[in-house]
Amino acid sequence: MNKNYIIPNEWSIIEDGFDAENVEASESLFSIGNGSMGQRANFEEDYSGKTFQGSYIGGIYYPDKTRVGWWKNGYPEYFAKVLNAPNWIGIQVQINGANFDLNTCEISNFKRELNMKEGWLSRSFQAVLPSGEQIELFTKRFISVKYNEVGAIEYAVKALNFSGEITFTPYLDAGIENEDSNYDEYFWETLEISESLNKACILSKTLKTEFHVATAMEVSFALNNKAVELTQENKVEEKAIYYSYKLAVSEGDTATIYKYGSYVSSLNYANDELVKAAYENVTNAKDLGYQQLLEAQIKSWDEIWHTADIIIEGDVKAQQGIRFNIFQLNQTYMGTDARLNIGPKGFTGEKYGGSTYWDTEAYCIPFYMATKDANVAKNLLLYRYNQLDKAIENAEKLGFKNGAALYPMVTMNGEECHNEWEITFEEIHRNGAMVYGIYNYVNYTQDFEYVPKNGLEVMIAIARFWHQRANFSAAKNQYVILGVTGPNEYENNINNNFYTNYLAKWCIEYAVECLNRVKKEYANDFERVIAKTNLTAEETAKWLEVSNNMYFPFDEGKNVYLQQDGFLDKEIIPVDELPKSERPINQKWSWDRILRSCYIKQADVLQGMFFFENKFSKDELERHFDFYEPLTVHESSLSPCVHSILAASIDRMPKAYEQYVRTSRLDLDDYNHEVHEGCHITSMAGTWMSIVQGFGGMRVWEDGILTFNPQIPAEWKSYSFTINFRGNIIKVYKSQTECKFFNESENEVHLFIKGEKISIPAQQLVTV
Amino acid sequence: MNKNYIIPNEWSIIEDGFDAENVEASESLFSIGNGSMGQRANFEEDYSGKTFQGSYIGGIYYPDKTRVGWWKNGYPEYFAKVLNAPNWIGIQVQINGANFDLNTCEISNFKRELNMKEGWLSRSFQAVLPSGEQIELFTKRFISVKYNEVGAIEYAVKALNFSGEITFTPYLDAGIENEDSNYDEYFWETLEISESLNKACILSKTLKTEFHVATAMEVSFALNNKAVELTQENKVEEKAIYYSYKLAVSEGDTATIYKYGSYVSSLNYANDELVKAAYENVTNAKDLGYQQLLEAQIKSWDEIWHTADIIIEGDVKAQQGIRFNIFQLNQTYMGTDARLNIGPKGFTGEKYGGSTYWDTEAYCIPFYMATKDANVAKNLLLYRYNQLDKAIENAEKLGFKNGAALYPMVTMNGEECHNEWEITFEEIHRNGAMVYGIYNYVNYTQDFEYVPKNGLEVMIAIARFWHQRANFSAAKNQYVILGVTGPNEYENNINNNFYTNYLAKWCIEYAVECLNRVKKEYANDFERVIAKTNLTAEETAKWLEVSNNMYFPFDEGKNVYLQQDGFLDKEIIPVDELPKSERPINQKWSWDRILRSCYIKQADVLQGMFFFENKFSKDELERHFDFYEPLTVHESSLSPCVHSILAASIDRMPKAYEQYVRTSRLDLDDYNHEVHEGCHITSMAGTWMSIVQGFGGMRVWEDGILTFNPQIPAEWKSYSFTINFRGNIIKVYKSQTECKFFNESENEVHLFIKGEKISIPAQQLVTV
Repeated sequence: MNKNYIIPNEWSIIEDGFDAENVEASESLFSIGNGSMGQRANFEEDYSGKTFQGSYIGGIYYPDKTRVGWWKNGYPEYFAKVLNAPNWIGIQVQINGANFDLNTCEISNFKRELNMKEGWLSRSFQAVLPSGEQIELFTKRFISVKYNEVGAIEYAVKALNFSGEITFTPYLDAGIENEDSNYDEYFWETLEISESLNKACILSKTLKTEFHVATAMEVSFALNNKAVELTQENKVEEKAIYYSYKLAVSEGDTATIYKYGSYVSSLNYANDELVKAAYENVTNAKDLGYQQLLEAQIKSWDEIWHTADIIIEGDVKAQQGIRFNIFQLNQTYMGTDARLNIGPKGFTGEKYGGSTYWDTEAYCIPFYMATKDANVAKNLLLYRYNQLDKAIENAEKLGFKNGAALYPMVTMNGEECHNEWEITFEEIHRNGAMVYGIYNYVNYTQDFEYVPKNGLEVMIAIARFWHQRANFSAAKNQYVILGVTGPNEYENNINNNFYTNYLAKWCIEYAVECLNRVKKEYANDFERVIAKTNLTAEETAKWLEVSNNMYFPFDEGKNVYLQQDGFLDKEIIPVDELPKSERPINQKWSWDRILRSCYIKQADVLQGMFFFENKFSKDELERHFDFYEPLTVHESSLSPCVHSILAASIDRMPKAYEQYVRTSRLDLDDYNHEVHEGCHITSMAGTWMSIVQGFGGMRVWEDGILTFNPQIPAEWKSYSFTINFRGNIIKVYKSQTECKFFNESENEVHLFIKGEKISIPAQQLVTV
Repeated sequence: MNKNYIIPNEWSIIEDGFDAENVEASESLFSIGNGSMGQRANFEEDYSGKTFQGSYIGGIYYPDKTRVGWWKNGYPEYFAKVLNAPNWIGIQVQINGANFDLNTCEISNFKRELNMKEGWLSRSFQAVLPSGEQIELFTKRFISVKYNEVGAIEYAVKALNFSGEITFTPYLDAGIENEDSNYDEYFWETLEISESLNKACILSKTLKTEFHVATAMEVSFALNNKAVELTQENKVEEKAIYYSYKLAVSEGDTATIYKYGSYVSSLNYANDELVKAAYENVTNAKDLGYQQLLEAQIKSWDEIWHTADIIIEGDVKAQQGIRFNIFQLNQTYMGTDARLNIGPKGFTGEKYGGSTYWDTEAYCIPFYMATKDANVAKNLLLYRYNQLDKAIENAEKLGFKNGAALYPMVTMNGEECHNEWEITFEEIHRNGAMVYGIYNYVNYTQDFEYVPKNGLEVMIAIARFWHQRANFSAAKNQYVILGVTGPNEYENNINNNFYTNYLAKWCIEYAVECLNRVKKEYANDFERVIAKTNLTAEETAKWLEVSNNMYFPFDEGKNVYLQQDGFLDKEIIPVDELPKSERPINQKWSWDRILRSCYIKQADVLQGMFFFENKFSKDELERHFDFYEPLTVHESSLSPCVHSILAASIDRMPKAYEQYVRTSRLDLDDYNHEVHEGCHITSMAGTWMSIVQGFGGMRVWEDGILTFNPQIPAEWKSYSFTINFRGNIIKVYKSQTECKFFNESENEVHLFIKGEKISIPAQQLVTV
């Protein structure tokens, strides 16, 4: 059943009382990160119970040899895996010579807290060791947002009933493995271990990819809050280094170790400078001191929350849930490095490998665009721009030519990683999301210049793909797209998926529209791009021949677009008539039964209508929502948010709220019994969208105009959210009785509320 | 490129000259077996070059844990693998203390022969050892058809240029592994090794399945053809036993070892009787003597050829090819044990695992039915009857109820082994072949009694499956079958595959027809079956509702049934317009491209028309042949034979011959560059059909009448074939100018030649 042990709290995730059964789930939920590195909430000290150790560095991956039952031509040889990195948090603790291990002690007053407001993780409890010593333990740690290669730990042990010796053994361990290795291979080689006074460093490199990483630590100590110097005993193993420090304590004393850790990698330094850089990081951190670092951390998170917070009154679990999502999204990706992206598990686990899915463009960009500076969303677009060559190679492997690009389903460096033919080769709608991301960005930021500088090349390559991928059907006298998988992965190898055909047509049209505008307004860029791509007017005419004559399956009787050819040959029985015992169908039914059923995993036709709401009438939206939603099982974490937003947009708040609730606490309440594997990071952006775009009705239209249409679920007292709209920090407040807009910025911004234009001067409060 | 080193010969497969590059291919081609056991043509002595060691026992398998990239609900946990069994053929040879190994010697006059007329394998050559000794070697070995747990080896070494010592070290080795193990696991446990004078035995059991196997050897010796007794030195290892014997030889002497081997298994003996039984076998063999055993072998094969031979005049390669096929089919399956079946590689390799595909019913039954006693085909039917419970369980795993059965795609013991969803769950047409096998058998043998005794239960379970698997389409107002893969595996998850729908409808109709006849003629059996299956008239009425309203995709314009819904949305370009460089498409194209192309792997619509030729007019056959054959790439070894037969039946001998040639020497000329993995056993039955049913035009119709319509390819002088038709041994001879029929039996049999009835009394020659 769902786990339900997290204590509701507005700003913190709290675990009260120790239960070994929750350790792995908590390791996921209490994860910390700063967009560049992150880690599961593993204990610093040894733990002999069930645990899943994980520490990760953004952009460092390993090409794990593909595992497959039956090979299909075109499969990638490797799957780029997020890599479990050397452990820098480890501190073994001995009390009078006995190893301290939560799994062997009596534990009381255990409390774990992830403070999202300030960005730190703490634990406190009392423990009785098997040998009888009683201790009180307090730890706090964080990964610095400001100094983004650094983490810090405060680890304090109080002797409650004894005098004697406490030994701290901080260590670095590069002998780590991935939980999800395909062939149980070891992914790292240890190159060098260096020792020094109170600090150490291990230089490792990943096999095959040859990323070099230096992992450093430095330690200092206090007794009853006063700094002390201790003697160090070194133990160096093949892949690890341990320093032991002994403190004599009297009953009532508190011994504290401060441990500073750092990862630096060859992504940012020359290989021969890594050890030096890592040492500098930990020494600077130690010199600055734990308290100063912590204050900087609190300030960093205050700035993040300033433009990202959502406040919900009247529902503390909803408040906790949405802040958890915003917090985790920020821990995963800060937007400062265009080589990084938003992995499905962030830094909370390894599952699915890779780092980038179409989730980024379809779900995450809106969040980052609206809560951060425009550069952040732009970096996400540049990530794809920088991988265009690989996307062209990927398409060539599948037989496409002339610069056509197919972006990968899952990737780390631009190469395709996935190996299910029905996904890898056929879930090609992802290519449409790449262009939709650009369109969304241009509308929101009005930074059209991104198109001539970068985006246009991507759009041309994708238009080429769609042009080649469609074929003329003599039987239909129109262009068709055969053999695809839509966003609804409960259909495979289908023909004329409405969503795919729609995006294909739109991608071509938008590419041509942008080409025309660039030709007029950015003549130099136009010439450069045309020269680079060898694009001719004849070729674009051929594209338009396809887009102008694209076939869409439509049923006259029901007056709806069909998800694919033949959809109405299925037995159509609404989900709520399915016995509970048969759900979730992905656990209860064999795959063929799922495929031939009418049940929809996640929005498909409706995903298209969500993306292009402006191109459909409200009647059409209602008709399609009423046809498809009852057939949708929402067995993807990305499903409910889209339905919530659409429901709100057709004024069905109860349905919108019902769908919202399905994802808002997906991980905190562990709906799918898998949070121990890591959190569902990308769907968290969907939950954010459900509030801002759903309940708040925020839209930015093609003409660049921002509008709101705030509604509120009956269950809440009020909610408010903040967005950064072209530098204007706008806050929207909605209660059961009123609606207010605040503009913190100096600039005037034009808003539309239900079609009425409102100008909001700086700092002025507006009540509708 | 194709290998082309086999010397053409009417009765033998011959390799002339030693080439290490051909060793693995020859190990497949020169394999020997007796239907119960068999082995690749590995050398008896040590060989340090590339080799694929394989020795197999019918019915002994291991459930190898499934290997899969992405798990789908319903996949089997295990894949039953044909097991490489303990090696009994090994004889190490030392010449003056130096180990003899072909890979380190200069070899001349190397000749290897597989004598198909007599059923033995031999090698002869001269070798110069690195140490200078020259020897002449002659070996012959066979696996006895008459004593089907026994094999024998004659191994003679002549000292050409030295006097000294020849050491023979015959051994048994149970430390063997499978080439195609999923996780490199060891499949056998050695239980006991027993030693005795000139004989030894190893008792092993398979892990998990716990089959017990005793492998025994016994040896005797001769010097210059005179028996000698030698002293034995024993070496026993953990999983192997070696006996060494030294012979002093003078220049010109020939030292010979005779080695007799035996496998006995817990399929046929109690576990504690195995060692005794194996010893009895080898001792009886030794007592009988090598020469006597060989004579029995020649007699056995003479009997096999008597009712199975095909003689082709004017084309020695064609003659060799067809005899190779008939020989291998007989080596793989003799029909005496209903627990065995016809593995795709027989005893020549391990690939594909399992032992039984729908190939048995669709391709192999006609061969065994026409060349052997009716009991052989009946045993193949009983194999499926005995696995009906497992087929019902298999269907239950996929959500079917009420005794519906889905026979497995690949199996050893009745459980499904395969794990590709589009095959395992969707290539359900195989269920139709199970019923077609019964129909075919009843027509040929007129043994309708098989239906009430066994077949009817299978037919009921399969009719139930089709009834449940079809669903009513409101859009089409007919029953449809969604989400299937037809025989053409280059289409996956398609709707309304013509072949599948046709077989589904026919299975129901034939089941009901048989039910009615059984009710009338076998009242007791009827009651028993009805009681066992709980079948009611209401249920059969529901079946007929489906079969009477089955939808078939049809195109009015082209006047052809479509392979599936939407087939004409594809780009239709004939295969011969594809550039050569793009073929075979299964090596050159990614899987999605193959799927959305119009190209057909093997007969699909045409497979249905081949099965039910009597239900289609010649016009229809021609129209469909002319539409589909040009789109067919024949990238399955099972494809050309069906097209060859259909082409002959619409009087297109050049096309029929072209297709015949594509499979007749598939392995001998290694068209697919994979013969080193083993031979394509089941497609060999297709080649036999191409001659007998294709060129010979043999048909047995629903009313039990046998007809011929002999035609001859322009390239041949004449051909003749022999069939066993209800105990009548009938020989058909066709030359470019005449056609003759011989009936060897005492009984009169009625033949139809192009519609004209002809009676042929015993031993009488008929010329048409």
